[in-house]
Amino acid sequence: MEPIAVFRKESFNAAHRLYNPAWSDEENRHVFGKCSNPNFHGHNYELEVKLAGPINPETGFVMDMKALSDLIQQEIIERFDHKNLNVECMEFKNLNPTAEHIALVIYQILRPHIHAALKLSVRLYETPRNFVEYPA
Amino acid sequence: MEPIAVFRKESFNAAHRLYNPAWSDEENRHVFGKCSNPNFHGHNYELEVKLAGPINPETGFVMDMKALSDLIQQEIIERFDHKNLNVECMEFKNLNPTAEHIALVIYQILRPHIHAALKLSVRLYETPRNFVEYPA
Amino acid sequence: MEPIAVFRKESFNAAHRLYNPAWSDEENRHVFGKCSNPNFHGHNYELEVKLAGPINPETGFVMDMKALSDLIQQEIIERFDHKNLNVECMEFKNLNPTAEHIALVIYQILRPHIHAALKLSVRLYETPRNFVEYPA
Amino acid sequence: MEPIAVFRKESFNAAHRLYNPAWSDEENRHVFGKCSNPNFHGHNYELEVKLAGPINPETGFVMDMKALSDLIQQEIIERFDHKNLNVECMEFKNLNPTAEHIALVIYQILRPHIHAALKLSVRLYETPRNFVEYPA
Amino acid sequence: MEPIAVFRKESFNAAHRLYNPAWSDEENRHVFGKCSNPNFHGHNYELEVKLAGPINPETGFVMDMKALSDLIQQEIIERFDHKNLNVECMEFKNLNPTAEHIALVIYQILRPHIHAALKLSVRLYETPRNFVEYPA
Amino acid sequence: MEPIAVFRKESFNAAHRLYNPAWSDEENRHVFGKCSNPNFHGHNYELEVKLAGPINPETGFVMDMKALSDLIQQEIIERFDHKNLNVECMEFKNLNPTAEHIALVIYQILRPHIHAALKLSVRLYETPRNFVEYPA
Repeated sequence: MEPIAVFRKESFNAAHRLYNPAWSDEENRHVFGKCSNPNFHGHNYELEVKLAGPINPETGFVMDMKALSDLIQQEIIERFDHKNLNVECMEFKNLNPTAEHIALVIYQILRPHIHAALKLSVRLYETPRNFVEYPA
Repeated sequence: MEPIAVFRKESFNAAHRLYNPAWSDEENRHVFGKCSNPNFHGHNYELEVKLAGPINPETGFVMDMKALSDLIQQEIIERFDHKNLNVECMEFKNLNPTAEHIALVIYQILRPHIHAALKLSVRLYETPRNFVEYPA
Repeated sequence: MEPIAVFRKESFNAAHRLYNPAWSDEENRHVFGKCSNPNFHGHNYELEVKLAGPINPETGFVMDMKALSDLIQQEIIERFDHKNLNVECMEFKNLNPTAEHIALVIYQILRPHIHAALKLSVRLYETPRNFVEYPA
Repeated sequence: MEPIAVFRKESFNAAHRLYNPAWSDEENRHVFGKCSNPNFHGHNYELEVKLAGPINPETGFVMDMKALSDLIQQEIIERFDHKNLNVECMEFKNLNPTAEHIALVIYQILRPHIHAALKLSVRLYETPRNFVEYPA
Repeated sequence: MEPIAVFRKESFNAAHRLYNPAWSDEENRHVFGKCSNPNFHGHNYELEVKLAGPINPETGFVMDMKALSDLIQQEIIERFDHKNLNVECMEFKNLNPTAEHIALVIYQILRPHIHAALKLSVRLYETPRNFVEYPA
Repeated sequence: MEPIAVFRKESFNAAHRLYNPAWSDEENRHVFGKCSNPNFHGHNYELEVKLAGPINPETGFVMDMKALSDLIQQEIIERFDHKNLNVECMEFKNLNPTAEHIALVIYQILRPHIHAALKLSVRLYETPRNFVEYPA
């Protein structure tokens, strides 16, 4: 049997700004436009976590969705929900919080908590029209 | 013929915090919880503007949706999109930017720009699960 | 007990153009823009039919949703689905097929088929961001 | 100022069958079709609770959405989620669990818990294409 | 030219419970929680069928979507819609009806009916927040 | 680091008919059914453009979503929005405008405008229930 994937969707709301400290304010404005507003803006982030692997024959699960939901809640939602990513989250102290980087950080946080036999990927919607997926 | 309604949906992304300056920080935290985070959080706000009235027999329109979209863009989206509502928007200098108050402010901004024969109402989604409508 | 409403959602795909025959081509272009393209464009129309009234104590239904779905299918979907509204539908031979007018026509077609004790209204989505409701 | 409405959306999953005990099995099958399957079927019910009234000037809220969410969780979700409505829920021991009746029951359960100054209504999606609203 | 994929989405409503007959009731409750309720609960299942392969140069289709829709209707929807998966569907007499297993069964039912040159996969939404895909 | 993907969603409305000029009208009707209506029908097409590749360390972007949105607007939306694909778009003068072919054409138009290091794919929704993806 080929691997099967399970997906769990959660959401969090956060403030951020796009900013490269190596650049002048003018360069930041030029590249990031209104996304670089120094007073921040924010999003409802929708997160889809995907795990691919074999079905456990005893449970019929790849992973218990309740356990996966609890894990995402504990490791991701409590960390980022209703936070200012630039100011309050050490993960983005030296990393520009683009959707790409947020997805990458979420992947790195979750990976050690997921069974090694399962392939992990994350999709993050910054808006309904802008989203990212890692790994592609 | 009874009135007919037209709806136009637009969206903006903004940062905010819930805060009553008449209260101590502790009271703010107690009532508003994580929504009162002094570093702000944010949302993708979805706005539905509804106009009810007669159909113009020449155009078949209650109002040209392109003109309504342009009006919302100019009066609302340019004002609030990618902004910090508490810090940058004078409308919320002395008004707590709850979804209720944001909807009320949007109504008051749009009302003078809409033909007096048309009944206006606005629905604002703060998240897909929390939304408001004024007037009810 | 106050009235309760039931809603049934169906969809159809059609071509149309906006056009007032009393006007010159230039006036049509000026008012309706690209919606007036003489070669037509089209939409996936989403239709929500709402009936409000008492619950039948024997069935627990305001109206059987299967019967309502069949009625919409027979009277609306078969009439307009995969049609050119301007060219093939007599309802729009002398009526500009704006979303407002299409909703009004659907209301008038359905009204005689719905029990007189039930209040009917229709909501029609032309796109996910433009929609109308009659009566308002 | 006119009343303003706030909405909170929650969901639950349940099994049910449509059945009138005053009728023969054949009559039940005739009227309710496959919805009357004696072995039950089920739905993901989506519930929208709407409260209309004045804004509390101290909080900027009609009602705290967190408190409303907790109330719905405690009174509705814990009662009906992952339940068999016909077999396990006393509210439907003698009441056919149509969407109309479920919405009515939810209204009656919530009403005493909501401040008397607020107008309550509930919308219940049985499927994305079939839904009800009480009062209409 | 690389392969292209077509997708068709259908839905069905069913009751189920999660249950491993090799375990005690207590073990079932411990592992499956409220999903193991012996009186069943249910879902609106959303099914996306994906076929990847070459475009037929005469039709411009990978497969006629009407034919694919009819096939899903006949082989899947008529089999599972408004059914109790555990009690009435032989496919789950000895197989725990988790989303993973339902997707696998749907794949196995459809595979012989799909042209061998086309790669099949199925995505099944148990709720808008829990879904699976086979093969991954 | 593995590649990461970014997605941008845009939409356009167009009329079309399915038609193979090598066939008789009767054959066209037989194969394409109501989709072959000579007076055309239409759709709200939803387009998702996916780019996979490395993150630019200076911006934190795979590609600036604003620039991608502008590119899609300029190359795809202006070309196809509010158009009759069969009559007005040279790309479909000799190519049946099935969803498969439209996706393929969009891919071919966009490919030269996208950096060679980025893998491009497009997903096109003809309706919420019928969609295609190229390459699969």
